[in-house]
Amino acid sequence: MAAKFQLIPGGTVTTPMGFSAGAAHAGIKTRGDRVLDLGILYSEVSCAVAGVLTTNKVKAAPVVVCQERLPVKKARAIVVNSGCANACTSEQGLSDAKEMTSLVAKKLGIPVAEVFVASTGVIGVPLPMTRVRTGIDRIVLSRDGGHQLARAILTTDTNPKQIAFSTKVGNTKITVGGIAKGAGMIFPNMATLLCFLTTDAKLDPRLAEWALRGAVDASFNMISVDNDTSTNDTVLLMASGLAGNQPIKDGSAEAEAFKAVLQEVCVYLAKRVVRGGEGATRLIEVRVEGAASEKDARLAARAVASSSLVKSAIHGADPNWGRILAAVGRSGAEIDQSKVDLYMDEVNVLKAGCPVQFDVEKARQVLKREEVPVRVCLNLGGDTAVAWGCDLSADYVAINSAYAT
Amino acid sequence: MAAKFQLIPGGTVTTPMGFSAGAAHAGIKTRGDRVLDLGILYSEVSCAVAGVLTTNKVKAAPVVVCQERLPVKKARAIVVNSGCANACTSEQGLSDAKEMTSLVAKKLGIPVAEVFVASTGVIGVPLPMTRVRTGIDRIVLSRDGGHQLARAILTTDTNPKQIAFSTKVGNTKITVGGIAKGAGMIFPNMATLLCFLTTDAKLDPRLAEWALRGAVDASFNMISVDNDTSTNDTVLLMASGLAGNQPIKDGSAEAEAFKAVLQEVCVYLAKRVVRGGEGATRLIEVRVEGAASEKDARLAARAVASSSLVKSAIHGADPNWGRILAAVGRSGAEIDQSKVDLYMDEVNVLKAGCPVQFDVEKARQVLKREEVPVRVCLNLGGDTAVAWGCDLSADYVAINSAYAT
Repeated sequence: MAAKFQLIPGGTVTTPMGFSAGAAHAGIKTRGDRVLDLGILYSEVSCAVAGVLTTNKVKAAPVVVCQERLPVKKARAIVVNSGCANACTSEQGLSDAKEMTSLVAKKLGIPVAEVFVASTGVIGVPLPMTRVRTGIDRIVLSRDGGHQLARAILTTDTNPKQIAFSTKVGNTKITVGGIAKGAGMIFPNMATLLCFLTTDAKLDPRLAEWALRGAVDASFNMISVDNDTSTNDTVLLMASGLAGNQPIKDGSAEAEAFKAVLQEVCVYLAKRVVRGGEGATRLIEVRVEGAASEKDARLAARAVASSSLVKSAIHGADPNWGRILAAVGRSGAEIDQSKVDLYMDEVNVLKAGCPVQFDVEKARQVLKREEVPVRVCLNLGGDTAVAWGCDLSADYVAINSAYAT
Repeated sequence: MAAKFQLIPGGTVTTPMGFSAGAAHAGIKTRGDRVLDLGILYSEVSCAVAGVLTTNKVKAAPVVVCQERLPVKKARAIVVNSGCANACTSEQGLSDAKEMTSLVAKKLGIPVAEVFVASTGVIGVPLPMTRVRTGIDRIVLSRDGGHQLARAILTTDTNPKQIAFSTKVGNTKITVGGIAKGAGMIFPNMATLLCFLTTDAKLDPRLAEWALRGAVDASFNMISVDNDTSTNDTVLLMASGLAGNQPIKDGSAEAEAFKAVLQEVCVYLAKRVVRGGEGATRLIEVRVEGAASEKDARLAARAVASSSLVKSAIHGADPNWGRILAAVGRSGAEIDQSKVDLYMDEVNVLKAGCPVQFDVEKARQVLKREEVPVRVCLNLGGDTAVAWGCDLSADYVAINSAYAT
């Protein structure tokens, strides 16, 4: 399947036709001279839009604004800041988030109802609106501004995450691009995730929503535990339709093809988010095979990928496979201990529930790789899932014990 | 209520009448010269017994043996080792666990069906049975052997945890004692917990089970997340009946009084387990008040107490209350953000969902205490729960990245 996609070198969220972006140093982030902390993503035409927002009952103000505007199903722009989450900021926060969208609507001459907003950073502190206002003023949009925007949304993760792929829908080339931001990803259930996706494919909003939900389930939801989200998590997809393809129909092969390329973008960004986790030195890819159901496969894969004991063991290149099995056992997935096989890459450490004599040095070498493949075969059915996590290092604690103040 | 209990200075699991214990260095723990790693708890009469065992689907062999024997409702002894969990050891493991109980039955001249067994340590490695056999041989029981036993069950937690309280049931003084072992408690859902409780009160097994379940729910289940248990978690209560009280009746005031003192013992041990968590420097006590239901109160309290971001912030004495609120928001508990009040001891940081200007230095001082009280008022109903956690320090990672090998 991957062969059908073309990676676009230097591709980003503004690579698909119709999009531009820009960013500025508004001074919302007080640390770091001239660090980008405010940006705009813009489409020259009105886009079909779909979103996946946090399920946390404590929602940041910008999430509430997005929630209100998604039913309109149209978007022209997204304004985003880092350094302040605008969460737990009560009525003032809501008013500030709305003002951000009004300022952008006015600057660009577009309807305010088609401007979306996202924030990430410290909770409980109001936005410095004077700085935000002059910052928005100063932003200059350009076709390759996606690279700037990718930097402007970062907090403690220091590497921009961006990509674009193209593929054919019928005879028409379409492009999907995206940028993402994640932090605190060592404990994925408490990350703030922002991801902005664009495409020039022509989609109706219902199809956009279906494709986005599927792509997020196979990517960002496999680096996090469903419903355990931060106050600010926001994934938005804008489809400009400028590629000129025949509108993609629900349930068609083209719809599947579009979902597949969108998923490829999301999986790439999700893995980069994990890899850029606070203090992370390695990516752990956990594949669960032979589960009795897809739900079981997902539960088990995520339990292993998010187990702090597994993460710590892998950080120390310690082939302590008992911790992997214990994580599967408490995941809620159906399991017959006497059927489980366990592999660290090609090193088989458990066969039909029995420990195997294995080459410990070889296993250690696997665990020292940049990408560590762990495979659990439940041998109960035909369902598979893949989840990603990173190792747990002492740096995580150093970063997180002094973040806000 | 606490005033009704008498703390017994130097009290332990062998303080109640009828109990003795002993321990030996069998060499199961390969590190540490002459470290105790095997022990026996013995009752001179047949006891009523109740147990709470791991809900992990991957169960260690000793847990399977306990599960089989609990329906008999009688116990004379418990044999326990540290250094090897005897988990994921397949048929051999089961046979070894049973042999441990046979050896003790033979040594003490008691029925094998009344001997229980527990193990803690590395997963996936078979017990060194030659060492276990000679170790059991060498154990000498004594009335104050509980102190030795408390040390023999430790792994990475280095301080023995033991206590005994007495109270009156009717006109008769009864005593409850206990020891516990926990490790990896910084992420409580992956700890192995062992706890052995004794009493000389006369109880029928049904009452013992009811009291134990209630006491565990208010203590060990508030430092861990239900169903997220290790392969080896075992809590056992033995009641010798030698105090000579009138048998306690179900639903009576005496039954409540017994449960209360048992709970006091369990809460003390649970807090000690948290405080002795790997790398822990502080105990965090999270009280959730005004919840719409008890379930909600418990969910919210545990979510805060087990949040790695909260733990990291408290380690750094950083009053980042947004992380506390975010944890409540994702806990699943009913919440109206505009009603929530938040306190760090007496420092009010959030009132009716709005940030309060507070004395940051004063809040920092609260967070630097040995016991950090955090209070969340949901203002939705009348239910309360208390959970405990510890701070997250870099030492945790150091300990857990090199444990097994």
